[in-house]
Amino acid sequence: VDTQMEEKARKHVDQLTKPTGALGDLEELVVRLAGITGQVFSDISKKGVAIFCADHGVTVEGVSAYPAEVTGLMIGNFSRGKAAVNVLAQRFQSEVAVVDVGSRLPKPPEGVLERKVRSGTANMAQGPAMTRQEAEEALQAGADLASSWKGAGLQLTAVGEMGIGNTTSASAVAACLTGKPVRRLIGRGTGLDEEGVRRKGEVITRSLQVNRPDPRDPLDVLTKVGGLELAAMAGFMLEASHLRLPVVLDGLITTAAALAAVRMEPRVRSYLFASHQSAEPGHALLLEALDMRPLISAGMRLGEGSGAVLAFPLFDAAVATAREMATFAELGME
Amino acid sequence: VDTQMEEKARKHVDQLTKPTGALGDLEELVVRLAGITGQVFSDISKKGVAIFCADHGVTVEGVSAYPAEVTGLMIGNFSRGKAAVNVLAQRFQSEVAVVDVGSRLPKPPEGVLERKVRSGTANMAQGPAMTRQEAEEALQAGADLASSWKGAGLQLTAVGEMGIGNTTSASAVAACLTGKPVRRLIGRGTGLDEEGVRRKGEVITRSLQVNRPDPRDPLDVLTKVGGLELAAMAGFMLEASHLRLPVVLDGLITTAAALAAVRMEPRVRSYLFASHQSAEPGHALLLEALDMRPLISAGMRLGEGSGAVLAFPLFDAAVATAREMATFAELGME
Repeated sequence: VDTQMEEKARKHVDQLTKPTGALGDLEELVVRLAGITGQVFSDISKKGVAIFCADHGVTVEGVSAYPAEVTGLMIGNFSRGKAAVNVLAQRFQSEVAVVDVGSRLPKPPEGVLERKVRSGTANMAQGPAMTRQEAEEALQAGADLASSWKGAGLQLTAVGEMGIGNTTSASAVAACLTGKPVRRLIGRGTGLDEEGVRRKGEVITRSLQVNRPDPRDPLDVLTKVGGLELAAMAGFMLEASHLRLPVVLDGLITTAAALAAVRMEPRVRSYLFASHQSAEPGHALLLEALDMRPLISAGMRLGEGSGAVLAFPLFDAAVATAREMATFAELGME
Repeated sequence: VDTQMEEKARKHVDQLTKPTGALGDLEELVVRLAGITGQVFSDISKKGVAIFCADHGVTVEGVSAYPAEVTGLMIGNFSRGKAAVNVLAQRFQSEVAVVDVGSRLPKPPEGVLERKVRSGTANMAQGPAMTRQEAEEALQAGADLASSWKGAGLQLTAVGEMGIGNTTSASAVAACLTGKPVRRLIGRGTGLDEEGVRRKGEVITRSLQVNRPDPRDPLDVLTKVGGLELAAMAGFMLEASHLRLPVVLDGLITTAAALAAVRMEPRVRSYLFASHQSAEPGHALLLEALDMRPLISAGMRLGEGSGAVLAFPLFDAAVATAREMATFAELGME
């Protein structure tokens, strides 16, 4: 990122009619975006949210409150524009791309980008979720969307996901990459009871024992205990950072993918932004590992990119204050 | 509020294509707004933020990082539409009303509502900030704006304030009404150093000793250690609750006024919404006293209603999801 432009943006923000730092994290947004876009007043009007979808073999272990078929049903819901993320994206003027990187649907519905690597992962509690080559193909699917969006002139992006069972995969990735105990990372997902959460913890622990993913090799972690949508999101972020495209994260699952991407290439971190603090306990630990602070604390735990898109107006607000507020000099004070 | 309509709204929200409760506090917004508006799908498109402005005699004690003249300069800034709150209000399609209830400006600039009760309060460290009658007049100024806005068809309102020295007054009100120790309530305000914060704490403690406000009589507290803008905001909230008009709070100062209003009439609470968690330490304690949870955690500490207006798009988002998302039945699941 352009640190000189960051410095310029900070100087401008400090001259605005408010106490220094009084706009809090909005000021940081302005400065960081300036470093990415190379402009004091960043233009972030063209936005998009990418929803990567895939199925998870680990669902046979009973780790989700919903049946695996819901992944396919929700892909249909996205394609008809009727899910939460669609409603938010329309409200906040964002494009939506739905990418099927590995659902079990024989044929994705109209409007969904078909980039299927395989029909759902294998059950990670018994062996690797996928092969390394499949993980690389999923990374590429994500990278291709980032590249196509950059070409289409998008300026601010968000990632989201859908995949019944994917809080289990994301928590396994998080446990492996952070070294934190599984019990501190896991939560209710889409609505497990206490017994369900306990079972989910056991399945994650077993998956890590069976596969022994190497935490120094994030692609190995994604391959063995990850998911196709997790790998695709990591690929999206890696490419976005090469293209200087900012990426807003959503909850636990996107942030697990982000930690994997940052461990692959530390420069990715400079292009990532937190949006909200999810109700899933692992999310706070992942944000901490990435040294990120969320803007919204609404107790959401939906995924789909919904929390990320909900933060879009805060980004717009930050940029608008920098562009439109008076300076102290204009007010007659120096 | 209409609890039957709340129940209806909750039933609808529970049928939407998401796990129960997954939209977190957005679901609560939908339900609470339904109880207030009497509609499952509340219309909150017409919004307004009211900025109540006044000066504080206690500034002679050196409790602020800025000179008292800044109150008047910022009133000018509001009237020209160039402060942070104006920029946010324009971005999020909200009206702005600036009410001078007690600045030291001889004549408020164009577009500012003139409801001056007196030219700034007296120094509360030496005696009451104002008389009880003056506090009542300030309450009335706030109530009149709520009433006029209801007449004009506004559907969602926010309160904000400007008054150099008013974190000192608000902290004194908060200390008296919550019974919490002053040192846990106070912060840097617009930018005090450590020595400044210590002095502010002493001034608050002395003001409480000199005036002995009665915590069971909130108007007595506002009279003796409050401010004209604090009283006006309390009056706005009292009247808004009579008119079934929802009010979004901002930071420390608006929330101190809210606690006073709720202590006067507990029903007011049902019409209040938290927006953000301010960086001022007293704010968290006040929100706790009101049993409120903020939506945004951006470390802001500007006032003006800026945090409240920043939350407006989250309210819009909540209402939009309820109105536009598919239900599980529509998805083919029951």
